[in-house]
Amino acid sequence: MLSRRAKFRRGSLHGVRPGDVLELLRDGRPWTRAQLAEATGLSRSTVRARIEVLQQLGLVTPYGDGVSTGGRRPALLALNPAGWVVAGVDVGATHVHAVLGDLAGQVLQEARVDMEVAEGPEAVLGWVTDAVTSMLERQRRGLAELAAVGLGLPGPVEHSTGRPNNPPIMPGWDRYDVPGALQRTLPVPVLVDNDVNIMALGEQQVHLPHVSDLVFIKVATGIGAGIISGGALQRGDRGTAGDLGHVRVSRGTGVMCRCGNEGCLEAVAAGPALADRLREAGVPARTSQDVVDLVRGGDRTAVQVVREGGRDIGEVVASLVNIVNPAVVVIGGRLAEAGEHLLAGIREVVYRRSLPLATQHLRVMPSGAGAEVGVRGALAMATGHALSPSAIEQASQRLGGGVAAGA
Amino acid sequence: MLSRRAKFRRGSLHGVRPGDVLELLRDGRPWTRAQLAEATGLSRSTVRARIEVLQQLGLVTPYGDGVSTGGRRPALLALNPAGWVVAGVDVGATHVHAVLGDLAGQVLQEARVDMEVAEGPEAVLGWVTDAVTSMLERQRRGLAELAAVGLGLPGPVEHSTGRPNNPPIMPGWDRYDVPGALQRTLPVPVLVDNDVNIMALGEQQVHLPHVSDLVFIKVATGIGAGIISGGALQRGDRGTAGDLGHVRVSRGTGVMCRCGNEGCLEAVAAGPALADRLREAGVPARTSQDVVDLVRGGDRTAVQVVREGGRDIGEVVASLVNIVNPAVVVIGGRLAEAGEHLLAGIREVVYRRSLPLATQHLRVMPSGAGAEVGVRGALAMATGHALSPSAIEQASQRLGGGVAAGA
Repeated sequence: MLSRRAKFRRGSLHGVRPGDVLELLRDGRPWTRAQLAEATGLSRSTVRARIEVLQQLGLVTPYGDGVSTGGRRPALLALNPAGWVVAGVDVGATHVHAVLGDLAGQVLQEARVDMEVAEGPEAVLGWVTDAVTSMLERQRRGLAELAAVGLGLPGPVEHSTGRPNNPPIMPGWDRYDVPGALQRTLPVPVLVDNDVNIMALGEQQVHLPHVSDLVFIKVATGIGAGIISGGALQRGDRGTAGDLGHVRVSRGTGVMCRCGNEGCLEAVAAGPALADRLREAGVPARTSQDVVDLVRGGDRTAVQVVREGGRDIGEVVASLVNIVNPAVVVIGGRLAEAGEHLLAGIREVVYRRSLPLATQHLRVMPSGAGAEVGVRGALAMATGHALSPSAIEQASQRLGGGVAAGA
Repeated sequence: MLSRRAKFRRGSLHGVRPGDVLELLRDGRPWTRAQLAEATGLSRSTVRARIEVLQQLGLVTPYGDGVSTGGRRPALLALNPAGWVVAGVDVGATHVHAVLGDLAGQVLQEARVDMEVAEGPEAVLGWVTDAVTSMLERQRRGLAELAAVGLGLPGPVEHSTGRPNNPPIMPGWDRYDVPGALQRTLPVPVLVDNDVNIMALGEQQVHLPHVSDLVFIKVATGIGAGIISGGALQRGDRGTAGDLGHVRVSRGTGVMCRCGNEGCLEAVAAGPALADRLREAGVPARTSQDVVDLVRGGDRTAVQVVREGGRDIGEVVASLVNIVNPAVVVIGGRLAEAGEHLLAGIREVVYRRSLPLATQHLRVMPSGAGAEVGVRGALAMATGHALSPSAIEQASQRLGGGVAAGA
């Protein structure tokens, strides 16, 4: 019996699971060991052991003094956001934006370039590799301190492999091994997703950190959604979840879409469709930006066309609200810069059409994360992976092996 | 340095996290410790320690002999489905069905009664308590071996508290503390959800165990969906996710719904709407069952009306497929018993209207779980909770405390 227990204890170092203690520390507040034990339901000795591993990994540091309940003051602990760094990259149709950030989502360094995604993966990812390497140097951080890279692309991506899947505006990228290309120089986990998914993560990170059910809708040349449900980004079976652009709307009868179907939302309410409608009314407009400029300049026809587009989008958002039941719907993308008119049209139909139980606490609001929403989401995706229980367990096992070797 | 390491080891017993080893064993196949170590990335000593805890909890047992790679044969291990029992309960509008099951989802004992849910929570939950107690006795299992109860109700439920939320056909149940009432006699975790959510879980458990993105659509007096995405049931912010019945459809113009809106799917294609349409055409029908009987009897008008209803449902399912991207859409509920005609109408529109990327691998199929789908889902919900890493951690900590006290 004694020998059995002794054997049982040999697993100690490897049995320590620091991940869930870290989950709590990620809220940014300082905690005492006793508070961590109470909140996790773990014993104090377990919490002590897990904290020790996290300190050895450089992820947890002491934080001033705790409030005493009599006797010696208990030590406060907090996440050390500078322990590791992560990189976030937002590849748009005509630009690339890369940042180096800390574990709290703070941007430490950034780099931007005007570059067409159509130049192909070698050119774009070559620039990304150079940018991340040089940002690491400028921050005097070694490659070993880089924990992960998150990258968003303007087209469908198979998230599990990081390969683009038939992206319409990205010649040369179909099925290209994006993680493999970056890992030749940056030997860390590389997470790849489409732009609207990383925008949803960015909005949550920057603006709505306590909301676990939110939908980010991008209205621009296309219309798509990033859906976070139950705290997790939902990609669906093949990564196509959130494709609102090809849902049929009632005003679409007789309108053909580039996808070959009739009446798709995108063919009625995306930027090019609104510009078409303005031209038909004699107002010169070609791009989403032209539409936004006209609305901002007070053009009445443009205001009316954008509001109608909002109602069409609202019809699909109403279905989405009934199906997904989010707490917040965020409207972003180029056309959202037209301001309240688009939002008013969306709200009008959503509150009329969705169920009272689903809209009672629903907020429909503009993006509060600004132009950095994509790159901040890419950073959040990388950090989420780097601090996941399994990644932390792997890191602490490497540490455990090292300690054992030195014993 | 040595004393620090010694302190570090004191957490050993509590540091053992058997949950993720158990996740693998839940596949029902036998595993060797070496295979478990490889699959989890944990060290062999950790796996040994976790297995020991699971054996002490009665959840893991030896399983014959493994295939040797030379030398002594490695021992095979498997989940012990008889370790604990769980109860699953399906409360319908006019019946209650309760089962006792093992951890592999096998039904050990069952009880049924014809009872109106409108008789109120005391009557219904009183019967449930008696039924579970008597099934435990008949199986000669003690209350201490019951790990959890899962229960489905025919109306909206706030899953976090287990309280019904304004259920239309359940007088006396609004905000009633369902878990509290059962826990007076059955002091275990009680999980409560609406009927279509447990049907989705039941379909997955019985028929589609390897599908992590599936939608179960119930077509009866109402129309609703249970959505499993990324392996988890998605309830949304307020638990109303999956409400398809009040999404607007194109044929609904001018049709008023009981919810006060115009053109809802339910007002056009649920059982009562189809019966109305048959009566208008001179065919006597009142209920969903009448419609099903007519179709089965070969009535041409009924076949046509059901197929049209399928097309209306297909319009909403097409939106859902674009938004959620499931691998499988399962059609169940009373009207699904009308067979291929309903399904054909749904498929016709879904494959015409949804995106090729989303439908390329999509299957739209009838429920394969039969009439037991609800109760099997309730069982799965209870088992899922009982075997979750946090529940196992709590159980093993109680065990750890006991072992430590005996040291």
